[in-house]
Amino acid sequence: MTISLNGHLLCYLKTRGKLSDMKKTNTIPGAARGPVDHEVRDQIVAAATAHFRLYGYEKTTVSDLAKAIGFSKAYIYKFFESKQAIGELICANCLGEIETVVKAAIDGTNRPPEKLRRMLKAAVESSLRLFFEDRKLYDIAASAATERWEAVRAYEEHMQAMLQDVLRQGRETEEFERKTPLDETATAIYLVMRPYLNPLLLQYNLDYTDDAPAQLSSLVLRSLSP
Amino acid sequence: MTISLNGHLLCYLKTRGKLSDMKKTNTIPGAARGPVDHEVRDQIVAAATAHFRLYGYEKTTVSDLAKAIGFSKAYIYKFFESKQAIGELICANCLGEIETVVKAAIDGTNRPPEKLRRMLKAAVESSLRLFFEDRKLYDIAASAATERWEAVRAYEEHMQAMLQDVLRQGRETEEFERKTPLDETATAIYLVMRPYLNPLLLQYNLDYTDDAPAQLSSLVLRSLSP
Repeated sequence: MTISLNGHLLCYLKTRGKLSDMKKTNTIPGAARGPVDHEVRDQIVAAATAHFRLYGYEKTTVSDLAKAIGFSKAYIYKFFESKQAIGELICANCLGEIETVVKAAIDGTNRPPEKLRRMLKAAVESSLRLFFEDRKLYDIAASAATERWEAVRAYEEHMQAMLQDVLRQGRETEEFERKTPLDETATAIYLVMRPYLNPLLLQYNLDYTDDAPAQLSSLVLRSLSP
Repeated sequence: MTISLNGHLLCYLKTRGKLSDMKKTNTIPGAARGPVDHEVRDQIVAAATAHFRLYGYEKTTVSDLAKAIGFSKAYIYKFFESKQAIGELICANCLGEIETVVKAAIDGTNRPPEKLRRMLKAAVESSLRLFFEDRKLYDIAASAATERWEAVRAYEEHMQAMLQDVLRQGRETEEFERKTPLDETATAIYLVMRPYLNPLLLQYNLDYTDDAPAQLSSLVLRSLSP
């Protein structure tokens, strides 16, 4: 990890509580500006989240946002390079919430096959919650997926890392086969899950979200049997 | 199959050579109008395909089309209820070509596991060909998938039927396990393949189309091992 990290990723990591040791950094290159830990940043993000939640992301300009949340446009630009920089942070927060739910679901059982089932189920359920209950924030995540924002890339990487962990544990307990290279297994299973984890793809799979998680988990577990 | 079938499906079946026994029907209810086997219909579809291929489907009106292909608008409406009715037939033709390629790939080998590999590979390759070489026609198929046209539903059903056939054969040769109910296996495998078979989803998976067919086939075959 270097200082040339994009600001939004930095903020993302910060909100995930992984950057306590980097707090001394005073200025951030790239999208996010100003002191990292300045609470005005958080205020802007909270106000922008509330605004986007009501009025949507695509149609709102930074001027609209400034007016609505009572900061000057120039002041917002002191902290964020663009509307997208704010959107990325909000998106990272939403995806971070999904990750937290998925992590809790995995940790809720000791058995690797059940961890795998719960992982997919929790990911789909919490993505759907975002989709149906917070549609306008979901749209930010879908934009992010279309434009390959760093927040979505980071999210996909974290989900893959969680999956690899579960697979490694299942190999240790001898519940999963070990002939296939771990990388190969993990990549293929991630491909199976991806249409339900990626916010952009999920909206085209809504007809399948009731049954697909269980059906796909069963198929994946059959493929993993020793 | 009853006479209340949508016209486009009727035409689709006709182009697939399955309706020779229904040719006596003189008028078609629904989207397609006029004598089924009137060669003007074919002329309109051929001319519309050429026109959409160059100028796209979404932006073209029936008036534009009439002007471009040298028929009066009224004359086109004698044969097709709407632009969508023409688009559906073109879409069905494109999807029919993919089906033909997939069928040939499956028939090219006797071994069910290899049939399964070739099925996914051929479907992805021929969908990509449509995507890259005939982008404007691909867009019709993507509209069709968004709006759930009958042609896409029929295509999905045909692919599922082909998949079930391969699975049945693999159970007969004892190369595939038989504990899991056939329906359950077929549905789950279809869910794995769907993001690469559905024209709407494929465009979001272009980064994966090189390796995914082989990786997913291997995972599916591991899940099928007796």
